[in-house]
Amino acid sequence: MADAPTDASKATENPAAAAGAPAGEEGGEKQSKKGAKKAEAKAKKEAEKARKAAERQAAEAAAKAAGGGAGGEDLAKDNYGEDIHNLKGKTFSAPAVSLRSIGDEHVGKSIKLRAWVQNSRMQGAKMCFVELREERNWAIQGVIAASAEGKPVSKQMVKWIGGVSLESFVIVEATVQRPLEPVKSCKVQNYELHITKLYVLAPAPEALGLSFAVSNRAIASFDDEDPNAPAAEKAVDEAKDGVAAVSIDGTPSASLSTHLNNPVMHKRAPVQQAIADVRQEARRLFAEYMDSQGFNLFEPPCLIGAASEGGANVFQLPYFDQSACLAQSPQFYKQFEIAGGRKKVYSIGPVFRAENSNTPRHMTEFIGLDFEAQIDDDYHEVLTILEDVLLHIFRNLKERCAEAIEIVRSVYPSEDFLLPEPGKKVRLTFAEAQKLLREEGPEEFRNVSDDEDMSTPQEKAVGKLVREKFNTDFFVIDKFPEAARPFYTMEDPENPKVTRGFDVFGRGQEVTSERQRIHIPSLLEARIRKKGIDPNSPGIKEYVDVFRSAGVPAHGGAGIGLDRIVAFFLNLPTVHLAAYYPRTPKRLVP
Amino acid sequence: MADAPTDASKATENPAAAAGAPAGEEGGEKQSKKGAKKAEAKAKKEAEKARKAAERQAAEAAAKAAGGGAGGEDLAKDNYGEDIHNLKGKTFSAPAVSLRSIGDEHVGKSIKLRAWVQNSRMQGAKMCFVELREERNWAIQGVIAASAEGKPVSKQMVKWIGGVSLESFVIVEATVQRPLEPVKSCKVQNYELHITKLYVLAPAPEALGLSFAVSNRAIASFDDEDPNAPAAEKAVDEAKDGVAAVSIDGTPSASLSTHLNNPVMHKRAPVQQAIADVRQEARRLFAEYMDSQGFNLFEPPCLIGAASEGGANVFQLPYFDQSACLAQSPQFYKQFEIAGGRKKVYSIGPVFRAENSNTPRHMTEFIGLDFEAQIDDDYHEVLTILEDVLLHIFRNLKERCAEAIEIVRSVYPSEDFLLPEPGKKVRLTFAEAQKLLREEGPEEFRNVSDDEDMSTPQEKAVGKLVREKFNTDFFVIDKFPEAARPFYTMEDPENPKVTRGFDVFGRGQEVTSERQRIHIPSLLEARIRKKGIDPNSPGIKEYVDVFRSAGVPAHGGAGIGLDRIVAFFLNLPTVHLAAYYPRTPKRLVP
Repeated sequence: MADAPTDASKATENPAAAAGAPAGEEGGEKQSKKGAKKAEAKAKKEAEKARKAAERQAAEAAAKAAGGGAGGEDLAKDNYGEDIHNLKGKTFSAPAVSLRSIGDEHVGKSIKLRAWVQNSRMQGAKMCFVELREERNWAIQGVIAASAEGKPVSKQMVKWIGGVSLESFVIVEATVQRPLEPVKSCKVQNYELHITKLYVLAPAPEALGLSFAVSNRAIASFDDEDPNAPAAEKAVDEAKDGVAAVSIDGTPSASLSTHLNNPVMHKRAPVQQAIADVRQEARRLFAEYMDSQGFNLFEPPCLIGAASEGGANVFQLPYFDQSACLAQSPQFYKQFEIAGGRKKVYSIGPVFRAENSNTPRHMTEFIGLDFEAQIDDDYHEVLTILEDVLLHIFRNLKERCAEAIEIVRSVYPSEDFLLPEPGKKVRLTFAEAQKLLREEGPEEFRNVSDDEDMSTPQEKAVGKLVREKFNTDFFVIDKFPEAARPFYTMEDPENPKVTRGFDVFGRGQEVTSERQRIHIPSLLEARIRKKGIDPNSPGIKEYVDVFRSAGVPAHGGAGIGLDRIVAFFLNLPTVHLAAYYPRTPKRLVP
Repeated sequence: MADAPTDASKATENPAAAAGAPAGEEGGEKQSKKGAKKAEAKAKKEAEKARKAAERQAAEAAAKAAGGGAGGEDLAKDNYGEDIHNLKGKTFSAPAVSLRSIGDEHVGKSIKLRAWVQNSRMQGAKMCFVELREERNWAIQGVIAASAEGKPVSKQMVKWIGGVSLESFVIVEATVQRPLEPVKSCKVQNYELHITKLYVLAPAPEALGLSFAVSNRAIASFDDEDPNAPAAEKAVDEAKDGVAAVSIDGTPSASLSTHLNNPVMHKRAPVQQAIADVRQEARRLFAEYMDSQGFNLFEPPCLIGAASEGGANVFQLPYFDQSACLAQSPQFYKQFEIAGGRKKVYSIGPVFRAENSNTPRHMTEFIGLDFEAQIDDDYHEVLTILEDVLLHIFRNLKERCAEAIEIVRSVYPSEDFLLPEPGKKVRLTFAEAQKLLREEGPEEFRNVSDDEDMSTPQEKAVGKLVREKFNTDFFVIDKFPEAARPFYTMEDPENPKVTRGFDVFGRGQEVTSERQRIHIPSLLEARIRKKGIDPNSPGIKEYVDVFRSAGVPAHGGAGIGLDRIVAFFLNLPTVHLAAYYPRTPKRLVP
C-alpha cells in the first residue's frame, strides 16, 4: 500500500465542534469560555452525541412506522436516505448547477447540487434549515418543509434530514427560490434551495474532531507545536482532551496542534483553502514568469551522495550499501545544468533541512522556487530577474487572488504590502544602506561598519527608513561585504572587499539572499583557501572539479521558499499555515 | 555549503574525446575499433595532450615574441586572449545575435556571439576554422584568417585560437558572411562568421572526459550500470581507463556509466538536451491540462511517519527522536485533499522506491504526475480525465517538440506512436480483452481466465491485436478482476467479481494502473478483511480513520511516471536517459 500515515487515530474531539452550531446561530458556541473545565466539555460532548443519536433513532423509527402503517405511510420515502454507492444522482432529472453560477434565471427551477451539510437547524417538526457548502466558502441555505399531503417532503423526511451529521456529503434536488430576506450566514445570500430530494452520499461521524466554524477561526495557540515553549505540555494535554482554547475575542478557537491533528476539517476551513489558493497561484506565477523568459524547467534530485552534504542540518539515510543525504538546496544541480549547456533553468521542488528549530519560521521540508541563469555582461542581469519575478508574483497575486486574500484577512488581518511603482525599484548598495543607518537610523546603529554583515534589527531599521523615503516594502541591498558571503560567491573585481551578492527585502525581512557564483576553477580555489577551507576536502573538490571539466559560463541565481513568501505576503502568524503538510522536528503526520 | 557531490573527480578520459575531431573531419574518430587496446588508447591520449600543449606554448611564445620585437609586433593583440572576469563583451560595439535568428539581413554586418568551441582545425599557419555552438545543436562555422597587415587578425591570433581547448566558452565579434558552399557539419549551413575578436571566457581542460561527438552517439553499453549483469565489471573497468566502447555501426561510443560520470559533457549532447526538451514539455502539458480543467495544484510531503509505509521498498531514515520514511506515492495525500474539500487536485513531485532493481525501467527516485478527482456519477469520469490528459500530452508533444523528437530519433530511432483519432478512443473491459486473447490470440492464451490478472506477455499480445483491429497504440482495459487490485479499490456494485480499476496501455505496455478508491469506511473495512488484512493494523487503521473523520465524496485518480512516459514516448533504451540525474541502487552521483 502506498498510503501515508495519519494521526487521525489520535483525533481529538472538540466540544465546540460537537455543538454543531445551527444555521444562523453562530453565537451558540460562545458559551465555552477560557478555562472551561474538561469535565464540562466532555459532558457536553456526550450530551450532544446522545441528542444526535436519539434524533436519528427517532427519525428512523418514525420513518419505519410510517412506511409500515396505513394512513401514516411515508409518501416521501423514495426522496431521501443513504446512497453510499452513489447511484441516485444520475437518476435525478434536474441539471447540476454550481453555487458560483446560480442566478435569477434559475429561480423557480429545479437543480441538482452536491455539497457538505455545514449546519442544520430544526424549526418545529415540519421544517428544517440546512447550510450546504459546495466549495471553500460557497454555501447556500436549504429549506426542507413537509407539505400537508406528505410529498415530495414528509415530516419523517424533515426529521431524518435534521438528524444528518454535520459535514456529511449529500446530493440534493431542489427548487431555487428567493429568501424572504438575505441569508447572512451564507455566501449565497439572495437565493435559497427548497429541497425535494436529499441523499447522504458519505455520512460524517456523530461528533467531529474540529468543527467547521472553529476550523475557520484564527488559531489560538501555537505553543503545543513548540516542544521548547513552557506552555507546550499543557496545550498538548488540552488538545488531547478536546478542550478548545479561546481566541482573543472570546470565541472558542483551537490550537495549531488540534488543527493539524484534524487535517480533514482543518483543510475544509475557507481560510485554509484561500491560503492554498494564494500558494498555488504564487507557484504558477513563478513558473509562468520563468517560462515567459525562456527558462528550462528541470528536476534536481532529492537523494544525493553523502560526502559533500555531510554535516549538521542534513538528513542522512541508509541507501543499499551506501549512505545518502536529502538535498538541502538545488543550487549545485542548477549550476550543473548551466555547465551542461542550458542558458537559463528553474526548478520547483522540495528541499530538506534537518535543523532542530521549533519556530514559526522553520520547517524540515519546504518547496523551493529556484532559478539559475547564464550571465552575459553583468551580474545585475540575475538581480533583475529576481526582482522582476517577485514583483510579477506579488502584483498578480493582488489581482488574481483578491477574493482569497480578503478571506485570509478576515481571519488573519494584515496591511497591504507596498510595492515599488513600475520603473521605481529601489536598490541600495550595502555601503549606502549602512550610511543611511549611521546617519538616519536609531542611536545604536551610529557606528555600523561597511565590512560586517547586517543584524536582523539593522535590517528592520533599514526597512523602516526605506519605507519612509521610497514608499515601498520591497527593495534590494547589493554588494554585501566579502565576509558575509560563502566561498562560492563572486567577489567584485573592482573592489574585492565586497561581493556580487545581494539580498531582497520585504516588510523589513530578508526574502532571499543571492549572488553570482564563481565559475572559474582557479578563482574558486583561491577564494576557498581565503575562507580557510581545504579545496581538496570531500565535497569541495568534487564541486570545483565540475568547473574544471569544461568551460562553464558566468552564472548566478536565486532560491525562494514558497511557504515563506506565502506566509510573508499574507502576514500569517506561522509558515506552518502556508504549508499543506507542515514538517517540523516534532511533526511527521499526517 | 548546499552543493551535492559529483564523481567528476573520477572523471575518466576518453581517447575519442581527446582526439578532438576537427571540423568536418568526423571520420577522424573512426580509427579506434572495438577491442582497441587500453595501452594504445592511453598513448593516443597522451600524444594528443602533448600536441595541444605544444601548440598552445608555441602560440604563446610566438605572441610574446611578436609583442616584444619591432616589425614582428602583434597588431591584433587587443583582439584575443583570456577574459575570465567577463569584462570584454560589454566593450564590443556589435549587437548580440542568436544563431536561431541569423538571416540575410545580417550578411556583411558585425555581430557578437557567446558560444562553446565545439571543434577547431588549423589550415596552414594563417587560417583556422572553429565550430561555435550556442545551444543544443545550434552551431555555426567560424573562420579566423590572418590578414596581410596583421590586423584585425594576426598570425599569432590565428595560432592562439587554434590552440583553444574544445568546449571552452568564448565570446566573438565577427562579420556574418555566406560560405562558399553550405557548411554540412553545422546546423547553420548558409552563413559563417568571419571572426575579428575572440576571448576565452571560461577555458576547458586540455582533454575532456567525454568528447562532444561521442556524447551525442547512441550509448554502446548499459551493462556497467547493472551490477547483476555478467559484463558489468569489465565495462566499469573499461570506463575507468577511458576506453570507449564501440556502437553497432562501428563508430566510437561510450557506455552509460561513462556518460553519467561525465555529466557536463553528457548534458551538452544535443540528444540529451532534446530529451530534456521533450520531458519539460510533457510536464508542462500535464500541468496545462490540469489547470484548464480547474484542478488545484498542491504539494504532498516527501517525509512521512514511518508506521504505514513500513515494509520493503521504503527508504527509512532517523528523524530527530523518531523514524521517517520517504513517500512512495502521493496517493494518500491526494485523497486527503479531496477529503479536505478540494474537488480536483494534482501534484508533480518526486517519489521514492527502495527497490533493489537494476533494470532499464527502474529508478529509486522519479517524478510522479498525479491527479485525483471527486467522482460525481460514474468512475469513468476519472478514466476520461486520464485518457484525455495523456492524449493531450502525446498529441502536443508531436507538434511542439517535432524538432527535438527528430534529434532524438537521429540517435535512437523509433516509430511514430499511433494515437486514436479524436472520438475513437478504445476501451475494452478486462473480460473483452481476455475473450479477444482466447479467440484471436496466440495458442498459449486459449484458456486465459476472466478472474486472474494479465501477464506481461498477455498484455503485449492484446496490444498487438488492438493495433491490428483499431490502428492505435493507445487504449484502455477497464474493470480488472477483484483479485488483481489492492484493498482500496472500489468493487463494481453490479458485479463484485470485478473492480472499478483500469489500466492504460501504450505500445503494448502498461502506462499506468488506476481506479476509483473506496471512500465509505464500512466498505473499506469490509474489503480490507476480505483481502485478509487486519483493519486495525498500523497504517491501515489511520488510513480508514480519515474516511471516518467526515463525509468524503467518491473519488478516484491516477499517477503517471514522468520519466517513464518520456522514455516510452521516445522509445529510449533506458529510463535513465530520460531522467536528469538518474538514481539507481548503485548510483547516487552526481
